[in-house]
Amino acid sequence: MNDRLQAVRNKMMGLNLQGMIIANPVNIRYLTKIEAEGILLITRKENIFITDGRYMEYVSSIITPFDEIVVDDQKNISKDDYENFFLFCENVGFEEKYVTYSQYKEYIRKFKINNFVEAEEILIHLRMIKDEEEIANIKRACEITDACFKMLKETIHPGLTEKQIARTIQDFYRDQAEGEAFETIVASGENSSKPHAVPSDRQIQPKDIITIDMGCKINGYCSDMTRTIFVGAPTEEQTKIYQLVLENQKKVMDEIRDGANIKTITKSVESDFNVNCQTLIHALGHGVGLEIHEAPTLNLKNDNSLKENMVITNEPGIYIPGNFGVRIEDTVLVTKKGAMSLTESEKECIII
Amino acid sequence: MNDRLQAVRNKMMGLNLQGMIIANPVNIRYLTKIEAEGILLITRKENIFITDGRYMEYVSSIITPFDEIVVDDQKNISKDDYENFFLFCENVGFEEKYVTYSQYKEYIRKFKINNFVEAEEILIHLRMIKDEEEIANIKRACEITDACFKMLKETIHPGLTEKQIARTIQDFYRDQAEGEAFETIVASGENSSKPHAVPSDRQIQPKDIITIDMGCKINGYCSDMTRTIFVGAPTEEQTKIYQLVLENQKKVMDEIRDGANIKTITKSVESDFNVNCQTLIHALGHGVGLEIHEAPTLNLKNDNSLKENMVITNEPGIYIPGNFGVRIEDTVLVTKKGAMSLTESEKECIII
Repeated sequence: MNDRLQAVRNKMMGLNLQGMIIANPVNIRYLTKIEAEGILLITRKENIFITDGRYMEYVSSIITPFDEIVVDDQKNISKDDYENFFLFCENVGFEEKYVTYSQYKEYIRKFKINNFVEAEEILIHLRMIKDEEEIANIKRACEITDACFKMLKETIHPGLTEKQIARTIQDFYRDQAEGEAFETIVASGENSSKPHAVPSDRQIQPKDIITIDMGCKINGYCSDMTRTIFVGAPTEEQTKIYQLVLENQKKVMDEIRDGANIKTITKSVESDFNVNCQTLIHALGHGVGLEIHEAPTLNLKNDNSLKENMVITNEPGIYIPGNFGVRIEDTVLVTKKGAMSLTESEKECIII
Repeated sequence: MNDRLQAVRNKMMGLNLQGMIIANPVNIRYLTKIEAEGILLITRKENIFITDGRYMEYVSSIITPFDEIVVDDQKNISKDDYENFFLFCENVGFEEKYVTYSQYKEYIRKFKINNFVEAEEILIHLRMIKDEEEIANIKRACEITDACFKMLKETIHPGLTEKQIARTIQDFYRDQAEGEAFETIVASGENSSKPHAVPSDRQIQPKDIITIDMGCKINGYCSDMTRTIFVGAPTEEQTKIYQLVLENQKKVMDEIRDGANIKTITKSVESDFNVNCQTLIHALGHGVGLEIHEAPTLNLKNDNSLKENMVITNEPGIYIPGNFGVRIEDTVLVTKKGAMSLTESEKECIII
């Protein structure tokens, strides 16, 4: 059986689960490499992927005997079959943050489940710690993002619209990677004060500030980087805010390491922002992997510690409504010794 | 208050619901035009959109006094506020097919809800019947899809890869619309036997069959069309299967009208396929709107009737594993008098 399925089974044993239903396609891909509609059943004896006629041919071409996964077409599964999958299971786990209330009720009925237990943490915890192959993929996605940003610095000039710049990024990612990891943000001038601005037809103007939040995918794994750049010299206020964000981003970089407390790191940024009459309005960062946002979330509510081989973002930002915003973000690998930034684009005040 | 919010309130009254939580962003967009993270509360007295600091500026710029929507930043809402929203509500509705099990439990706790009732059907039913503005948007998305297909017929030639063709479609949609409504399918040769094939690096060859499933978005509304075309004259077997699919697609077109039973329509296609030793392996169609797949699903399980101003797809397909597949699909408006096809590209055997 592949290592990841084995790891799930080990964690299930620790939680006294005799069976589990995996419905989230991202978790299914993580455990099996299958990208198709269906559900994965982990029963006492087998790993079973139930799909439908549209995917049978494809799925059978993906799995290897080593995986130990049985593939079934749902149209061949009877009512009795469903009720037998978890027949002697006292507790069956499910993904409570993915499964809808409606599916939850349906699974209990269809599989005649005695005790349906919230067990998504098994997958969340496994996926938080990246293995060599995953880190290599994210690293590659980060390199391509750095290359894209290098190209942008030479390309962006007044007159281009935010949409045109976003499209340049999308094209680059389509050529060099599997496309964008999320909708690229290009927010210029006063638009930069909205952390989640959508690229508009606004033209870049002299003296603009531009926030670009970008990332791509390699073998499904994401990169995530933000840079805030200036068209011509920044104002005094912009310089002050930029330096405040940059200093905090660097400070966080120094604090990231295996064992560091997430709440403490976040608190120190929030305090420094407050001292300077600013607010930290969004999370300081998040895990990155097969999804652009995964565990852990770096915020004040998270009292857990960073662990070796987590991949997270470090992205403090300050937003002055109706005026401008600054965010600086890197994708970072947590190691025993400290942070290893996987995105390496320059972040000292960039003037184009 | 806007018509759609008023319609929800009317339906809530019929179900004895005094409050409702709307969490699905598509439903929130449908009811309010807001595209931001947050939840919409329909309480006895008010419509309240709770969001966070990242979106306050944007949301306030979208809503009008006529909407009668109060916008709140979640950081200003106390524990007591949450418990007071539905204080004198006996029953509060929620979207059981969207809300996860984990959210379900969290809402009950946070809002101190007495009786949390599955009520997603309210939104599903409202969204099934399109108003004038919605139909105009889908119509426009269909026109652009027809224009794109016209361009393709002049562009596709042996030597191009599936990915290159898919990219041509994506570029067209990015220029003329809001991009793809779903991941474009370009499946050539034996790949066409997989209904959900992903565009590959396979080059188009002489004598190929090519299935192209494509659609774009206008103001959030989708179009959906599939054509199967031939590079050079089809084989006898291909012609036979193509005609079988086409005849059934046309027959369905004749049967679609306000009041027609969905199960009956589907059954007649399935029977004709079976008589000809073929199988209908996927649904005959689905609703189209703000989402590419919405209610109603056209399959044997659906014993409901079509209604005026539904927009649905009509997409029979036959797939011969390892060999080839044929699917022909249009987006169709249901009227009192019959079907009005919104995609109008030719569908008699197309040879390029």
